[in-house]
Amino acid sequence: MTEAAETRLQNGALAVQQAREKYEVLKAKGLKLNLTRGKPSAAQLDLSAALLALPGAADYMAEGATDTRNYGGLQGLAEVRRLFAGIMGAPAEQVVAANNSSLALMHDVIAYSLLKGTCDSASAWGKHGEIAFLCPVPGYDRHFTICETYGIRMIPVALGEDGPDMREVERLVAQDASIKAMWCMPKYSNPTGTVYSRAVIERLAAMKTAAADFRLLWDNAYAVHHLTEERVEIANILELCAKHGHASRAFVFASTSKITLAGSGLGLFAASPDNVKWLLARMTPRTIGPDKINQLRHARFLKDEAGIFALMEKHRALIAPKFQKVLDIFQEHLAGVEGVSWTRPKGGYFITLEAPRGCARRVVALAKEAGIELTPAGAPFPHGKDPEDRTIRIAPTFPELAEVAQAAEGVALCVLLAAAEK
Amino acid sequence: MTEAAETRLQNGALAVQQAREKYEVLKAKGLKLNLTRGKPSAAQLDLSAALLALPGAADYMAEGATDTRNYGGLQGLAEVRRLFAGIMGAPAEQVVAANNSSLALMHDVIAYSLLKGTCDSASAWGKHGEIAFLCPVPGYDRHFTICETYGIRMIPVALGEDGPDMREVERLVAQDASIKAMWCMPKYSNPTGTVYSRAVIERLAAMKTAAADFRLLWDNAYAVHHLTEERVEIANILELCAKHGHASRAFVFASTSKITLAGSGLGLFAASPDNVKWLLARMTPRTIGPDKINQLRHARFLKDEAGIFALMEKHRALIAPKFQKVLDIFQEHLAGVEGVSWTRPKGGYFITLEAPRGCARRVVALAKEAGIELTPAGAPFPHGKDPEDRTIRIAPTFPELAEVAQAAEGVALCVLLAAAEK
Repeated sequence: MTEAAETRLQNGALAVQQAREKYEVLKAKGLKLNLTRGKPSAAQLDLSAALLALPGAADYMAEGATDTRNYGGLQGLAEVRRLFAGIMGAPAEQVVAANNSSLALMHDVIAYSLLKGTCDSASAWGKHGEIAFLCPVPGYDRHFTICETYGIRMIPVALGEDGPDMREVERLVAQDASIKAMWCMPKYSNPTGTVYSRAVIERLAAMKTAAADFRLLWDNAYAVHHLTEERVEIANILELCAKHGHASRAFVFASTSKITLAGSGLGLFAASPDNVKWLLARMTPRTIGPDKINQLRHARFLKDEAGIFALMEKHRALIAPKFQKVLDIFQEHLAGVEGVSWTRPKGGYFITLEAPRGCARRVVALAKEAGIELTPAGAPFPHGKDPEDRTIRIAPTFPELAEVAQAAEGVALCVLLAAAEK
Repeated sequence: MTEAAETRLQNGALAVQQAREKYEVLKAKGLKLNLTRGKPSAAQLDLSAALLALPGAADYMAEGATDTRNYGGLQGLAEVRRLFAGIMGAPAEQVVAANNSSLALMHDVIAYSLLKGTCDSASAWGKHGEIAFLCPVPGYDRHFTICETYGIRMIPVALGEDGPDMREVERLVAQDASIKAMWCMPKYSNPTGTVYSRAVIERLAAMKTAAADFRLLWDNAYAVHHLTEERVEIANILELCAKHGHASRAFVFASTSKITLAGSGLGLFAASPDNVKWLLARMTPRTIGPDKINQLRHARFLKDEAGIFALMEKHRALIAPKFQKVLDIFQEHLAGVEGVSWTRPKGGYFITLEAPRGCARRVVALAKEAGIELTPAGAPFPHGKDPEDRTIRIAPTFPELAEVAQAAEGVALCVLLAAAEK
């Protein structure tokens, strides 16, 4: 062994020892912290406390002489569809306002497509043999779970700085008619914070697809969820699809789950007139209509788009410091560590931490042992399998600021230990 | 022509002429009445006005330190499941409390079964070739629409005084493994008001079925919706199924749509532990949880089972007179008319009027011409086809009492004219 190699080895052993000592101190604290899920904090929920007493005992009539207490109104209240038209990037007539959970809407359009086909399908997707969806990675685990549940093959494509690898996407969809859809989180993507560039969005709208009934599952979950002064805007997918002759290519989803109340918000859908007609026809056997009182409640509380933006500023005041705290701590402990990087999102609910290759599972296990619950390593990948075992999703919104700091410190220590062990 | 025959003919012509004259008077009134759908009236909705300001700005914590404003709680709030356990005939652990619309729950268990199979299925129902459901007739059109939508063959079976023709049901399910389910409205059935006897319910629980994954779709929509002093009780299907070794045979559904607010109530499901586990597993990819605030709102408002019963008494006070008015008018105008009969329901939302054979469509058309909207003739039958063209569904709850009276008079005149024309 050369002297230099021996020194390296000794240094390495020392680094592990030092990291382990710090980790033992961390463990001894007996923390009980949770950074797993993108949940709003109680303080964020308090911002919408007024909703809990709305609309009030004498207020139940909506536009068009609609008694919101009774049955009907499948597409949702007109004033609510108008309220969200700007955010959805579609006229109110092309918006569907539903019950809580945009995830349920996404699930349902897929279930309807499997059982009956889209408005452009020759037959039900379930009768096409194996079908596949493109899955930009890292991505949202619940999107992937829907695919897994229904045996839809997931084809990962790399998510870059400005969106998915479009050369790969175009190549795949052009040749393979079994590719029926693609998951997209175009703004402040979960978990990377990626914003799709105009060029990427236009290519998604314009590309040739082998499947005539190909769909972009456009989950714009963080449409107004800014973390900086900059209100990042993205290109309008519905307009671009129409411009390029694929008017019905995109299903656009959003919700107020992280605007008002996480469990009691409104799910929203927008698409071409043909798609909306299709969805309403598919929903008709399922339900007579959504909870219109909750819609009225939201209309009374949010009032207009300015009301939504003002509320989102209050959210930002509560959560931006938590993101900043995590970034500061990572900078302090992890800057310059080989193979370690993290995202600095301008919006959304997550920071992605990239550990050295092969370390993510170890980091999550170490953190768990020290009382810090992290999203399982691999979760942002189809079937929970991160091919490089690197990506860790950090969700800083739910705990108090002091807990976020403790947890971030702890995670940084775990990264250092796992890296040193390597 | 004999003198007697000539007299009969003359009498017949006279009857038509007299009926037509009365009908012309009716038409001249320019009515605009609607007896089509089983909707509560505004006065009924007023009974739950308190819900519109509940739970109140400071009240959002449910049992088990559950912040109802945030995500989670797929099965629904514990206190709500307990509140409805008696009505559902199952312990709270076997109840699922969901969003508005029990129809959506029924749709979804069928969609899940088609896509994935039940907990007793070897494979997805959608992969079994053509499947079939038994449909007691007359029945609920929305049940049939779900079947029609998904290409499920509907096999009508006659609904008698005490439930479906069990000899026929037993014969069919014993021999045909493609029969996967049977629609049942066991109490105050839509539209006939039929109550299944204990003997019928026990036979449904006990019968041998060729399909190992056969299901009773037990839509107990009118569980507490009495129209008389008598609170009719039915046998507990879940207990009887378990007793006969078919614990997972029944999916039980109910909702508060006609207890509290039609558009903003709670959908409820109950079944065996295996079925509940199955449903929750199937719901997991779809949603993180129901609108728990609306559940808390209902718990605060209804308080306990006695609260539900007291509220239902107030509904009865509002709607029983409307039913009585229809019955009185039918008695006055239609008693003794050949081929005409009607039900005298002890609960539920409908009266079924049987016109002379071949007359139902004509009656509905005549009523429409006179400004009285009735449910389309045939609606209570699969594919909207009443083989005898006799059955007319009358829904007296929504209009004011005076309008119900006008409409019932009008319908009676239309029946007399249609009968005379025959």
